[in-house]
Amino acid sequence: MAVHTPLLNSAYLDEVAGCRVYLKPECLQRTGSFKFRGAYNTIASMSPQERANGVIAVSSGNHAQGVADAASLHGIPATIIMPADAPKTKIDRTRRLGAQIILYDRMNEDREQVAAGHREKTAAAFIHPFNDPRVIAGQGTAALEACRDLQARGEENLDHVLVPTGGGGLTSGTALSVAHFFSGAQVHTCEPEGFDDYRRSLASGRLEKNPAEGGSVCDAVLTPSPGEIGFALNRQLAGRGFAVSDEQALQAVAFAFRELKLVVEPGGAVALASLFKHREHFAAKTVLVVLSGGNVDPGMLQRAAELPQIR
Amino acid sequence: MAVHTPLLNSAYLDEVAGCRVYLKPECLQRTGSFKFRGAYNTIASMSPQERANGVIAVSSGNHAQGVADAASLHGIPATIIMPADAPKTKIDRTRRLGAQIILYDRMNEDREQVAAGHREKTAAAFIHPFNDPRVIAGQGTAALEACRDLQARGEENLDHVLVPTGGGGLTSGTALSVAHFFSGAQVHTCEPEGFDDYRRSLASGRLEKNPAEGGSVCDAVLTPSPGEIGFALNRQLAGRGFAVSDEQALQAVAFAFRELKLVVEPGGAVALASLFKHREHFAAKTVLVVLSGGNVDPGMLQRAAELPQIR
Repeated sequence: MAVHTPLLNSAYLDEVAGCRVYLKPECLQRTGSFKFRGAYNTIASMSPQERANGVIAVSSGNHAQGVADAASLHGIPATIIMPADAPKTKIDRTRRLGAQIILYDRMNEDREQVAAGHREKTAAAFIHPFNDPRVIAGQGTAALEACRDLQARGEENLDHVLVPTGGGGLTSGTALSVAHFFSGAQVHTCEPEGFDDYRRSLASGRLEKNPAEGGSVCDAVLTPSPGEIGFALNRQLAGRGFAVSDEQALQAVAFAFRELKLVVEPGGAVALASLFKHREHFAAKTVLVVLSGGNVDPGMLQRAAELPQIR
Repeated sequence: MAVHTPLLNSAYLDEVAGCRVYLKPECLQRTGSFKFRGAYNTIASMSPQERANGVIAVSSGNHAQGVADAASLHGIPATIIMPADAPKTKIDRTRRLGAQIILYDRMNEDREQVAAGHREKTAAAFIHPFNDPRVIAGQGTAALEACRDLQARGEENLDHVLVPTGGGGLTSGTALSVAHFFSGAQVHTCEPEGFDDYRRSLASGRLEKNPAEGGSVCDAVLTPSPGEIGFALNRQLAGRGFAVSDEQALQAVAFAFRELKLVVEPGGAVALASLFKHREHFAAKTVLVVLSGGNVDPGMLQRAAELPQIR
């Protein structure tokens, strides 16, 4: 079962941001990111027959660990397709969670074909990282907890919710939960500059693509285009999107380290970075900021700490 | 007012430690350590007349920031006596919290005389870092919260409580709170090797001193000898003490970073390090581990991350 992550405050953060901030630190979730929630909910939703065949996912990052852990808790096999040149730490951590790893050669093999080949042999169920209603519902439990905790603390009003956004599974799940509890709150997608497909898709009303596939330190939130199911929800439920530079994301990582004592990865810090970048937009409001993951190396933290400090 | 810090769990930590662990992360407290609690309680306990004269403390570390922040919240002046060669970050952070800083020359001046000189002029009340019942009561609120939260989660039993220990203010306050809620639980002092005055004092029944004054990375918990008031309490209430090497403390820092996504300083990690070092002592038990502070530089984290991993 997922960890009920706490709702955190920081008087210094409120002072710097100029508003009342609640943090939902999903870096404290099992496997270090919210991804466990969606994977667990998807597997829990399967029939015993479907589940018995095991699950398969394609990921070199947080989704891989989330699926591996969720499968392990259900006592079923998980197979994760990863590029052979993925960081050793990520391969090791996914293996540690009990998953079978199939490495493929990014230059000469197609990962979809590798996955399809494995599924033919095992009939394992594919778990998409975001374009699945069960995944979206699972990711939405983070905001569900946050909204209940806000009400338990007597908070009657919530103005804005800032969410790190890749394919939009977390954001659309969040939007569903928030709409139920705080119908006046605006949910915002937060992305790295150059990978703001969601921001542009919300503005144009159709699925926009990113010009590049990689090249940002915010690897956890890089996807080519929004997922269709989540986008259909977010078109109805989400407000405008924000985008921040890599440097701004890293400055937020450093702020979390220095002032909040939380380990947050660059992709997981883009919502906090958006808060700092657009302070005028949130002045004196009540804002929920999701810190979506914390799987980062000390070297990246050092790099972040050398940038000018957010104050 | 102090932050009600959450009670955290980690399935992976439980697996590695071989017991059920609850973490009380005081690194998430205002100013990054539990020290705020004692300072705030002390100032709140003063008469309006006494308080109006302001407060004074001698510290280059977490106590300095705790007193500065607590005084600022009460709207009274704080003066902190710090050695002129203290790290600039610590001086800056204390000043940022509104305190007046008086720097002294460690080689040619006596800090007690510097403090006495200032008190004569201002009649400011001195806040001792640990040897004061009001400070001890304040530090005890961390465990008070933890015990209440344990009960709210239906935890009927607590076997051990591990506490980073310097002068013993946090430990004795913890012991008082724990005795009220879980009378069967053993509270243990945790210190760096070579600075285990508390462990030896509990064993001998009298105040023992450390051979050296400095030289451990665990700067937050280095004190020459236990405080008398706390020791009188801990002699009655605490069980045996533990001591860990600097390397073991740093390995716990790295574990907190890598697996818990919490920033913990070496001195704040000695209780977690003691849990790992003495796993056989805690097998299958329910253990509360206090992470007492998180004021650490990225460089120290990098150094910790290069050590062999705790698994």
